[in-house]
Amino acid sequence: MAVDIPDVVVRRLPTYLRALRQLADDNVDFVSSHQLGERLHVTPAQIRKDLSYFGRFGKQGRGYNVQLLITDLDQILGLDREWETILVGVGRLGRAIIGYPGFSPEGFNLSAAFDSDSEVVGQEISGTLVRHTSDIPLFTQNNRVDIAILAVPARAAQLVADDLIRNGVHSFLSYAPIPLEVPRGVYVRSLDPILAMEEMTFYLRDSERGGWK
Amino acid sequence: MAVDIPDVVVRRLPTYLRALRQLADDNVDFVSSHQLGERLHVTPAQIRKDLSYFGRFGKQGRGYNVQLLITDLDQILGLDREWETILVGVGRLGRAIIGYPGFSPEGFNLSAAFDSDSEVVGQEISGTLVRHTSDIPLFTQNNRVDIAILAVPARAAQLVADDLIRNGVHSFLSYAPIPLEVPRGVYVRSLDPILAMEEMTFYLRDSERGGWK
Repeated sequence: MAVDIPDVVVRRLPTYLRALRQLADDNVDFVSSHQLGERLHVTPAQIRKDLSYFGRFGKQGRGYNVQLLITDLDQILGLDREWETILVGVGRLGRAIIGYPGFSPEGFNLSAAFDSDSEVVGQEISGTLVRHTSDIPLFTQNNRVDIAILAVPARAAQLVADDLIRNGVHSFLSYAPIPLEVPRGVYVRSLDPILAMEEMTFYLRDSERGGWK
Repeated sequence: MAVDIPDVVVRRLPTYLRALRQLADDNVDFVSSHQLGERLHVTPAQIRKDLSYFGRFGKQGRGYNVQLLITDLDQILGLDREWETILVGVGRLGRAIIGYPGFSPEGFNLSAAFDSDSEVVGQEISGTLVRHTSDIPLFTQNNRVDIAILAVPARAAQLVADDLIRNGVHSFLSYAPIPLEVPRGVYVRSLDPILAMEEMTFYLRDSERGGWK
């Protein structure tokens, strides 16, 4: 069960994959770590080091075989199968997520949406029926749920997460602007715009004051 | 100009700040790195090491003074001032962002929104007037813009970013599901749900197969 790959490496792999797919679309067969690095603003050494965690890729002088590396990264990232996904929270943000065309081409199947507002429950939005959050236990009993996307208000997020965890969901993509408290073994990835902006202001301020050294 | 603080450290600082603010709301005056670590699921050593980049905080045996550390982190992260923010793209996602109540309490002032759809332009959404994207050059001439939030479709994102960069904007929070190509010195933070989910599936797949070692 030990995962020995640094998180920052895992964070970069999907961006490598995306760049490789673009290259494949442009009918490029081979790419060097140098060319790939230029596209992604990372050093060639970084790319070679990141990939070296997973085996030997590429040939000296010839670079990486684009199609083979795509297949390998798909397999490493678990993208060679479908992942069952649910959405909780069908407000403005939730509606934007349901309507987002990017999930299914990548193997993420949005199988259900849930909300506690009776005005929304029963509606079909972009082809997905909105169910009441009280139906979550029954739904998770009868359907596999790999990932839950949380688009609920901050005050509801922890309660909703607790409820889902009790019902066997242990992977969350959370838009809620609070850190979720979860037991070990539950994976949370936060897409909180405030946290992201507060990282940015560090760099903005830092360039104004001339760095920390 | 040299920034010597590792990105992963900067990424954690806003979460420390948020936990400290919660403690302050609960009238807690002092907190140990152990207590803070438990709340955030990081080790006490990690917290101490992260903070040591910025000076000496806390007293042996007594822990951190919550209010003082909040003040210091606010200053380190540049949150002791206002940041002028604009939004480009006022579709469903953009509307959700405009309506998001979290920005202004943290010092992010959403000063304008832009869209290219004439049906949306001229509308006022949650108190923010939507202008046409062709007004961006004039707006940036007359107003400071620290951060642009991009909520435009993938096909438009690069063009919009290029246009903003030409007009002096060099910090982006992007929801677009593509990696933006930007010159050195331009900072982009991506909130792409697909990239985030593809990191998650690595860990899900990894726990199924028992890790990489």
